[in-house]
Amino acid sequence: MSRGAGSPIGLHRVIEPRGVLPQAAWRLDNSPELYDDEVRVRVERLNLDAASFRQLREANDGDGARVRAAVLEIVRDRGKMHNPVTGSGGMLVGTVEAVGERSPLGLSVRQRVATLVSLTLTPLAISDDLAGWDGADEQVPAAGHAILFGRSVAAVLPDDLPVPLSLAVLDVCGAPALTHRVVRGYLAPRVLVIGAAGKSGALALAAARHAAAGSVVGLVPTEAEAAVVTDSGLADSVVVADARDPVATASAVGAPADVTVVCVDVAGCEGGAILATAAGGTIVFFSMATSFAAAALGAEGLAADVTMLVGNGYAPGHAALALDLLRSQHGVRQLFEQRLDLELSMKE
Amino acid sequence: MSRGAGSPIGLHRVIEPRGVLPQAAWRLDNSPELYDDEVRVRVERLNLDAASFRQLREANDGDGARVRAAVLEIVRDRGKMHNPVTGSGGMLVGTVEAVGERSPLGLSVRQRVATLVSLTLTPLAISDDLAGWDGADEQVPAAGHAILFGRSVAAVLPDDLPVPLSLAVLDVCGAPALTHRVVRGYLAPRVLVIGAAGKSGALALAAARHAAAGSVVGLVPTEAEAAVVTDSGLADSVVVADARDPVATASAVGAPADVTVVCVDVAGCEGGAILATAAGGTIVFFSMATSFAAAALGAEGLAADVTMLVGNGYAPGHAALALDLLRSQHGVRQLFEQRLDLELSMKE
Repeated sequence: MSRGAGSPIGLHRVIEPRGVLPQAAWRLDNSPELYDDEVRVRVERLNLDAASFRQLREANDGDGARVRAAVLEIVRDRGKMHNPVTGSGGMLVGTVEAVGERSPLGLSVRQRVATLVSLTLTPLAISDDLAGWDGADEQVPAAGHAILFGRSVAAVLPDDLPVPLSLAVLDVCGAPALTHRVVRGYLAPRVLVIGAAGKSGALALAAARHAAAGSVVGLVPTEAEAAVVTDSGLADSVVVADARDPVATASAVGAPADVTVVCVDVAGCEGGAILATAAGGTIVFFSMATSFAAAALGAEGLAADVTMLVGNGYAPGHAALALDLLRSQHGVRQLFEQRLDLELSMKE
Repeated sequence: MSRGAGSPIGLHRVIEPRGVLPQAAWRLDNSPELYDDEVRVRVERLNLDAASFRQLREANDGDGARVRAAVLEIVRDRGKMHNPVTGSGGMLVGTVEAVGERSPLGLSVRQRVATLVSLTLTPLAISDDLAGWDGADEQVPAAGHAILFGRSVAAVLPDDLPVPLSLAVLDVCGAPALTHRVVRGYLAPRVLVIGAAGKSGALALAAARHAAAGSVVGLVPTEAEAAVVTDSGLADSVVVADARDPVATASAVGAPADVTVVCVDVAGCEGGAILATAAGGTIVFFSMATSFAAAALGAEGLAADVTMLVGNGYAPGHAALALDLLRSQHGVRQLFEQRLDLELSMKE
């Protein structure tokens, strides 16, 4: 019962307004019948974006039943879990249920997958009224189905790793992929990772070394974080500085870096990254707190001949590379497990 | 009477607060005595940033005498023309008066120059109370001196071109420089310039052709602008679309571009640029209206394997390349002169 060919970016699922991208749409067609290049996933769990969940909690006075009703209403109205206030979504975990004959994603029925494109553009229907969720946590047990387009991205969850660990890695897998690609463009470069003790920072350190960096420097804000990175063994050296202070940052780094990767989610780190990078070098900004204008004007003001990249979260093979780094570099796994334990303990 | 070695980025001129970059400083040392690597310029005219001038006009009810007093007060308090409300500055034109023995800028006394780093980080003193300025125009005749650091950027104004034309070109000379560099990284690429009828757009078209693009496509919002670009001869084809509409933009462009240059100063053009660019392609964002998050999340949501660059306004040789394009490509000069005539007529 094929519906014919779909648009690889899902334009055929847009109901309202017509002609916009699925992410910009108010409402998507979430019907289960597949177009030829689509995949249907049986949903197991939604991971709501942190900002979205916080907003829903606050708007509903922390009342779990009302939070649950609000999520159900959004999905019913929009055909996707796209919080209209925050504009954000999240991701989902489920099992492949049907694969269109022309799907290019390479998925097979019964594979367990995580979607790596946002819920804001993923057609979704809920069939269990979220009965298994108390509305008190952004991890939402759910039954229903979701649709992947030809150009969607989903990663098969590996059998050899705990699911929360895989999800934490997949969440930031764009950072090591782009770091790897940029570092490979230089001969044994000096690589600086700002925010080295975080999840994307640790993977960026590992990716840089994997890509044959000459030396890898981690920058962190505190001695405690320096100890964590040193202990992980992922960096050749670790320095402590406030990344918002350009002069202090450049001074702590010493010899300028050929490649600088900004992974710290704090505003105002553009100047430090620019000042710590050599002429002819490249800066990759992965922090969503990056200001486009601060980066552009900062480099101009310093007459800095540096290439500055917007950290694109997608690159072919990004999920596999990140999971391989986790498996092959003990320090990555150690750091991720510490982080997950910390997050778990903070929730209790 | 040397003062010794300065910091190439001017840290030695920062008075308050200590240890920050000159742009972030409240007050700079604007004394005329040079450090070894500095250059002193006899000021002839300030070009205030448009946003700064508008704010000063509005805050002073359009009263020219009060606007003049406000500018004098800023320069006296801060040692630079750095509008504390808008955070912006502008540029200046003047004549080289003294060159420190270790200045790396290659300037000579009596050369007429324009500064290409912002007034927000340029030590400046005014000696004529701006007596020749009526406060009604962002072009400010002025006497006084300014200081260039080792890493400042100043362009010698060419003898063969009218000053307003040179300044208009120098104002956007980062765009053709980076476009040239990126296009050279591909073999005969298809290049798309979004906002092709503007000043940076015209120079980007010319730079792409100069860098051996395979084909050059200009995108503009109206038939009137399409006629201007077609008439200039700078593009192989011209298409009309609203760049804020990704689907319309990609559809108008047809075969995707290998290199896309965004020059239009309108918010919301990230999705169109991403959708119109081929896998493996590069997008250069020159618009200050670019949203870092929209670019990063947009590419991820479309699973687009594109490299996205923050348009750095500085590259070695950028001023010379832009002026050469103006001289060598008739269409560039034609378009700039039309634009300048238009601006002049709108002021009258």
